Amino acid sequence: MDFQRFDRYVDQHAAELLSRLEALCRIPSVSAEKGPAMAKAADFVSDLCRSAGLATEVVPQPAGPPLLIAQGGAGPRCLMIYNHYDVQPADPLELWLSPPFEPTVRDGKLYARGAADNKADLAARLSAIQIFQETMGPLPLRLLYVIEGEEETGSQHLFRFAAENGALLSQADGCLWEFGSKDEADRPVISLGVKGILAVDLHARTASSDAHSGNGGIFPNAAWRLVEALHTLRSPDGQVLIDGLLDHIRPPTPAQLALLAELPLDVEAVQRTYGLRNGFLGGLKGVDALRRWLLEPTVTINGMWGGYTGPGGKTVIPAQAAAKLDLRLAPDLTPDLALQLLREHLRRRGFDDIEVVDQQDGLLPARTDPDALIAQAVTRAIRSVSARPPVVFPSSPGSGPMHELCGIHGVPVASAGAGWANSFIHAPNESVRVADYLEAIRVMGRLLATFAE
Amino acid sequence: MDFQRFDRYVDQHAAELLSRLEALCRIPSVSAEKGPAMAKAADFVSDLCRSAGLATEVVPQPAGPPLLIAQGGAGPRCLMIYNHYDVQPADPLELWLSPPFEPTVRDGKLYARGAADNKADLAARLSAIQIFQETMGPLPLRLLYVIEGEEETGSQHLFRFAAENGALLSQADGCLWEFGSKDEADRPVISLGVKGILAVDLHARTASSDAHSGNGGIFPNAAWRLVEALHTLRSPDGQVLIDGLLDHIRPPTPAQLALLAELPLDVEAVQRTYGLRNGFLGGLKGVDALRRWLLEPTVTINGMWGGYTGPGGKTVIPAQAAAKLDLRLAPDLTPDLALQLLREHLRRRGFDDIEVVDQQDGLLPARTDPDALIAQAVTRAIRSVSARPPVVFPSSPGSGPMHELCGIHGVPVASAGAGWANSFIHAPNESVRVADYLEAIRVMGRLLATFAE
Repeated sequence: MDFQRFDRYVDQHAAELLSRLEALCRIPSVSAEKGPAMAKAADFVSDLCRSAGLATEVVPQPAGPPLLIAQGGAGPRCLMIYNHYDVQPADPLELWLSPPFEPTVRDGKLYARGAADNKADLAARLSAIQIFQETMGPLPLRLLYVIEGEEETGSQHLFRFAAENGALLSQADGCLWEFGSKDEADRPVISLGVKGILAVDLHARTASSDAHSGNGGIFPNAAWRLVEALHTLRSPDGQVLIDGLLDHIRPPTPAQLALLAELPLDVEAVQRTYGLRNGFLGGLKGVDALRRWLLEPTVTINGMWGGYTGPGGKTVIPAQAAAKLDLRLAPDLTPDLALQLLREHLRRRGFDDIEVVDQQDGLLPARTDPDALIAQAVTRAIRSVSARPPVVFPSSPGSGPMHELCGIHGVPVASAGAGWANSFIHAPNESVRVADYLEAIRVMGRLLATFAE
Repeated sequence: MDFQRFDRYVDQHAAELLSRLEALCRIPSVSAEKGPAMAKAADFVSDLCRSAGLATEVVPQPAGPPLLIAQGGAGPRCLMIYNHYDVQPADPLELWLSPPFEPTVRDGKLYARGAADNKADLAARLSAIQIFQETMGPLPLRLLYVIEGEEETGSQHLFRFAAENGALLSQADGCLWEFGSKDEADRPVISLGVKGILAVDLHARTASSDAHSGNGGIFPNAAWRLVEALHTLRSPDGQVLIDGLLDHIRPPTPAQLALLAELPLDVEAVQRTYGLRNGFLGGLKGVDALRRWLLEPTVTINGMWGGYTGPGGKTVIPAQAAAKLDLRLAPDLTPDLALQLLREHLRRRGFDDIEVVDQQDGLLPARTDPDALIAQAVTRAIRSVSARPPVVFPSSPGSGPMHELCGIHGVPVASAGAGWANSFIHAPNESVRVADYLEAIRVMGRLLATFAE
């Protein structure tokens, strides 16, 4: 298909397309704040859907912002798209160079909370759907666009909707996931899955009150107990040691391993960016590092505390100590199973003084075969537009409700989007490059064709 | 010697002796606050010293409250006494049933900050010295009373004074230490030493910024590093594992071990008091528990922190984490040597990302032979007064500047005092029982005789 007219439209309307994204970014749709901006954002986005010629249903939720279901087009294939109109809180505000909800272009980048995660993708995709019809003709496939307003607070209502609407969702032949970015070398990254996640608190309690540390040789100490328990969970080189957990990991397929072999990984560049003192855990590099990073389960201490943490010293034996952990899960490990294995692991070792508290509902892992239509179609769409060829990750190292929305209905998923290597999502000075936003429109135009072919 | 007249004096002047202690407790001599109360307390105590017939020198200190040196009496023997007129801060104030600096008698107990640590002993001893001379005659020995005003903040100036005044201090044949208490069964406890102490912070730094926990399988994590480092320092049953540290511990003498065999230790009572879930570390009991508690070195986590510690979860890899530790040291382990061994231990295991920061000057361990004159004289003095026979601890499990004041000059030391099992020193609602305070006066009267004999 010849996209000359499509591309000319994008060029000629670049300023207008950017204003549309700016207008969306100006709405402070922080789902955690539950304010009136949520309804405003839902209205704005449903207007965009309707402008794109999609039949749009605003589905109210009992205790949250509405879900938008937009459909249109005709053809043998059905493409699902998933986005969200909510954003992370903007704090710490003092670190922003321009106010988070006053979108500002500096040096070719649009700075705003939500610009990269994921309003640029939402605006780009809806714009592309509209432009396709104005410049190329009718949509060559059926579109099922699912847009929620509480991705950043846990997608609670989406889960229920997905479970109750199997007939609607399972007609999709593939799904384009919410967002993605280019890497440090400006290669567009396509991801074919997410890890699951289980987040827990470990609470150690060894006594009814703190005691004088003169008794440290004989009294139990909650901080020591926590250290001892944590130490059994992971080897210093980063391998999960929770009894039986690895037995539930499906080995990567040859096709997934082949993807790893093609991925660039500049350990030294990562080391510089994050100021890592001693490189990766266990000296991992190359395919070994990629495999651990993308395909294997992990256990991470997110935080820990106990006893006296003020200035100077206090000669005390803490009676309580706690840690927050997240476990990232690979297929077929579910959060429930991981929680059960963790509890059994600790109980088996006598840590009955440590309570494992589930922080919130976990997420299941999801993975799409590299040969799946959606993976191939996204790759071809990007290849035909982007200056550099894409790289394909067999999974993202992060998590999201991919299994809950798509996996349970057998819909394969690929992620790609308008972000760049320093988009700083969830952080101050989040941005997208204007050129990447316009490129994402062109990519989405192609995908409507490549997925329909 | 017949103490009938002495004891009758105490009985007849009980109210006045109590008022004296109340007046001292009314002065809020919190050394950490460095307020005008310090000079007021020093004046009050030096007046008590002079009333007791002692030649009293107020030795100003360059940046702290004055040291008091009070001397008197004549005879072949010289008894040193060590006390302090400063107290711990009173907070948390809201937990006090009566204001900490408005001494209040309830149910036979005087409640005030500093009542037990150690104003009752200070007032009792000075009162006894005065009463002895009024009722029994001239002092049968030389007294060297050393009273400082910054014990609760680290005794900095005392150390210098002790180092520079060897000729004065080394004439003492023994020293009665600042305070002591009765145990749960109302047996007066005599302690013949203290453990040394080293307090350090461990700072783990693994990256220049926190990172997303999706990278947890390959990125170093300061909290994990801290857990791994801490885990090498102590066995779960409480034994110190720092390389070479135990090589510097002098084995207990047969006389010290014999004392252990005579000590009562009601593990279940301790377990109830502190709500210990699983008894003592490693199931220790009897002589084994006493030996660990009183004679062996320990390493205790006083506090630790790192990463996200707020409500809910945050999927972060902490770049920094830290722990506060204290090591209690047995002879002949010095704080400097323990610090060096700890640093070498960590370096040897590759923990170059963990910095060991010395919190403040440590204290050396000190121990007195059970056959020493001061130990025998204190035991005899208590036996002749107290309703229950004393128990003798070969060392206290706590620490104090005993070596720095006495040990370096070869002066043997014993501790005993007016506290009771629930005196709550350093805590809200500190108290002494009025009867114990009066008994401490009678004990001190006897000691002037037993030590001179």
